[in-house]
Amino acid sequence: MTVAVLFGAQSFEHEISVVSAIALKKVLKCDIVYIFCDYERNFYLIPTDKITSKRFSSGEYKKDKTLFLKQGGFYAKKMLGEEKVAFDVMINLVHGRDGEDGKLSSMLDFFGVPYIGPRTEGSCISYNKLFTKLYAGEVGVNVLDYQALRKGSDELIRIPYPFIVKPLRLGSSIGIGIVKEKKELEYALDVAFEFDDTVLIEPFISGVKEYNLAGCKTDTFQFSIIEEPQKEEFLDFDKKYLDFSRTKRVNEATLDAQEEAGIKEAFERLYDPLFLGALIRCDFFVVEGKVYLNEINPIPGSMANYLFDDFDSVIKALSNYLPKDITMSKEYRYINSIQAAKGK
Amino acid sequence: MTVAVLFGAQSFEHEISVVSAIALKKVLKCDIVYIFCDYERNFYLIPTDKITSKRFSSGEYKKDKTLFLKQGGFYAKKMLGEEKVAFDVMINLVHGRDGEDGKLSSMLDFFGVPYIGPRTEGSCISYNKLFTKLYAGEVGVNVLDYQALRKGSDELIRIPYPFIVKPLRLGSSIGIGIVKEKKELEYALDVAFEFDDTVLIEPFISGVKEYNLAGCKTDTFQFSIIEEPQKEEFLDFDKKYLDFSRTKRVNEATLDAQEEAGIKEAFERLYDPLFLGALIRCDFFVVEGKVYLNEINPIPGSMANYLFDDFDSVIKALSNYLPKDITMSKEYRYINSIQAAKGK
Repeated sequence: MTVAVLFGAQSFEHEISVVSAIALKKVLKCDIVYIFCDYERNFYLIPTDKITSKRFSSGEYKKDKTLFLKQGGFYAKKMLGEEKVAFDVMINLVHGRDGEDGKLSSMLDFFGVPYIGPRTEGSCISYNKLFTKLYAGEVGVNVLDYQALRKGSDELIRIPYPFIVKPLRLGSSIGIGIVKEKKELEYALDVAFEFDDTVLIEPFISGVKEYNLAGCKTDTFQFSIIEEPQKEEFLDFDKKYLDFSRTKRVNEATLDAQEEAGIKEAFERLYDPLFLGALIRCDFFVVEGKVYLNEINPIPGSMANYLFDDFDSVIKALSNYLPKDITMSKEYRYINSIQAAKGK
Repeated sequence: MTVAVLFGAQSFEHEISVVSAIALKKVLKCDIVYIFCDYERNFYLIPTDKITSKRFSSGEYKKDKTLFLKQGGFYAKKMLGEEKVAFDVMINLVHGRDGEDGKLSSMLDFFGVPYIGPRTEGSCISYNKLFTKLYAGEVGVNVLDYQALRKGSDELIRIPYPFIVKPLRLGSSIGIGIVKEKKELEYALDVAFEFDDTVLIEPFISGVKEYNLAGCKTDTFQFSIIEEPQKEEFLDFDKKYLDFSRTKRVNEATLDAQEEAGIKEAFERLYDPLFLGALIRCDFFVVEGKVYLNEINPIPGSMANYLFDDFDSVIKALSNYLPKDITMSKEYRYINSIQAAKGK
C-alpha cells in the first residue's frame, strides 16, 4: 500500500503539520508519498528520502515538482501531457486552517481522492468551538458551560472568574488565555480577537483531570490507550508544538472501569457517523466522575500515533472503511421533458 | 462589472441550477461569464450568447473551452501557457450537493476567488437540517420540534401524526414525504433514506402560514419583500423546479407590523455573521403569532431575484462586502529556532 501524506498549507499550524508529516515516516511501514502545500497554497511533490524541516523553511521545496488537482487526483505536468501521482489513500495531515476547517476535505471529495481525515461537515463542527458544543449536546455528551462573545459586543460576561478565553476557531492552544481576575481580561480578549472575530469563554477548572482518547471506526471501533497528558496550567503553543514531533512518550491514564467506559461511550457518540473515515482524538475532562468533552481534534498531531500499539495496522484497516457519497444518476429529465413539451 | 456565474455540478439539483443560471441573464445588467461544472465535475466556459438548457442536456457544452482551478481563479489552457478567465466576482449558483454543502465555497476560498455565496461553515449548517435546528436555537430563533432517525435504527418515533419526513441533507423538497398515519410511514422512510442515511421528522401543520424573506448584509441589511408562497400541501420537486425559472410572479404577504418585524429580526440573527457574503432566503412559519424557522436556503433558485425591486443593485453592493480571512504571517519561526538550537 502507498499512502500519500498531505501537509502544510495556509495555517497558523503549518509548522506543526511539517513536523507531524516527518514524524509519520518513522511509524508508517508502507510506502509514503509526500505532497506539500505551501503557505501560498501551491502543491509540491517532495521526495520521501529528502524530507527535512529545513527543506521547507529554506524554500528549497520550490525546486520540487509542482502538482495540480483535477478529477481523480494530483497531477504533475510532463513534457507531453501530465502524470498522476500514484497512491492508494491520502492522509490529510494539515492541522488548523485549510486542513481542519473543511477546505481540503471538500477539494479531495470533489476531485474523487480517497482520504483518511474528517469530512467537511465534521471539520466545520469540530473547528468551530461553539458548533462543537451544540453538537455534543445533541448527541448526549456533556460540555462545560460557555459563552460566545463577538468583537465589539458590549454583552456582559456571565461566566465567573477564573475563566478561559479561546478564539472560536483554531486549535493547538493558539490565542488562548486564562483570566483569573478582571484586570487580566482586556489583554486576553485582545489576544484571542487577533485570531477570530468571536471568542468562546468557558469556566477554568484548576487541576481538572484531562484524558485524551484517539480512535476510529472500521468494522468496529479501534481505540488507542487513554492518555492523561502532562499538564501545567495548560499546554501553550510552544510546548504543544514540541509535543507534536513525538513518536513515543505517553502517560497512560489510570481510570476505574466506569470512567473508562464513560469516555469510550462519549467518543462513540461523537464519532459515529460524523467522523467516519477519520482518526480523531477527543479530549475529555472528568469532574466528580462525570465526563465532559473539551475538544474534538479531527487531525491530531502525527495522528496521535504514539497512543496506538500498532498505528500502521489501524491506518491500513481504516483505509478500507472510508465513507462513500450516495451515487446519483446523471440525467436531464426535466429539461428534456420541457423541451419535448415545447416541441409539440 | 463582470460577474461569473458558476452552475451545474454533481447535484440532484443540477438541472435547477442550469435553469437558475439562464434566468439570471435576464435580471443582471452587468456582463456575465458562465462557468459550467458538469456532472463529472469538469469545468467549462460557456459562451454567454449561446447559453440554452439544450446545450447541457445534449452534451454540446463539451466542445466549449475546458477550465481548471488554480491559485487566483479559473484558467483555460492555450497553445502557449494558460489564460485566466477575467471577472470581478463570481456567483456560486450551484444548488444542493457541491454548491450548498461547502465543497465549492471551500475551493473558491482556497484558490482566492472572490464570490457571492455561503462560506463553508454556513453551508454545512444550512445543508444539514439537524445542524440548522441547533444553530437556530443558539441564535434565539424558534424551530419546530424534530427527531433525527438513522437508517436501521429501531428508535420509536415520538412526533405524533401527521408528520413530515425529510432526508437530513438536500433541498428542493427532494425525498420529502408527509405521513398522516402509520401505514404511510414505511414508504416515506424508504424514499427519504434513498437520499440520506439519516432523516429528520417534524410535525406537519396543515395550512400553516409560510413566509419567505431573502436578503443580505452590505453596510446594512438589504431585504426583499416578504413572499407568501402559493402552496398546496407543499411544493414538490416538479413544481419547485418550474418555479425556479421564474423572474417575476410573487404573492406578497400581508403581515402586521409585529409579524414582519419578527421575521426580519429572525433573519438578522440567522444571517450575521455566519452568512456574510451570501444572498440567502429564509423560509419561516408563523404559528399563533410566533415565528419559526423552516429552512435556510443559502443559494435560492435564481437567487430569489423576483423578490427584489432592484436585484442588480443588490448584487453590485454585496460584491463590495465579501468577508475576508484573517491574514497570517508566513514564517518558519519554530523550525528555525530548533535548527538554530541544534547548530549550537
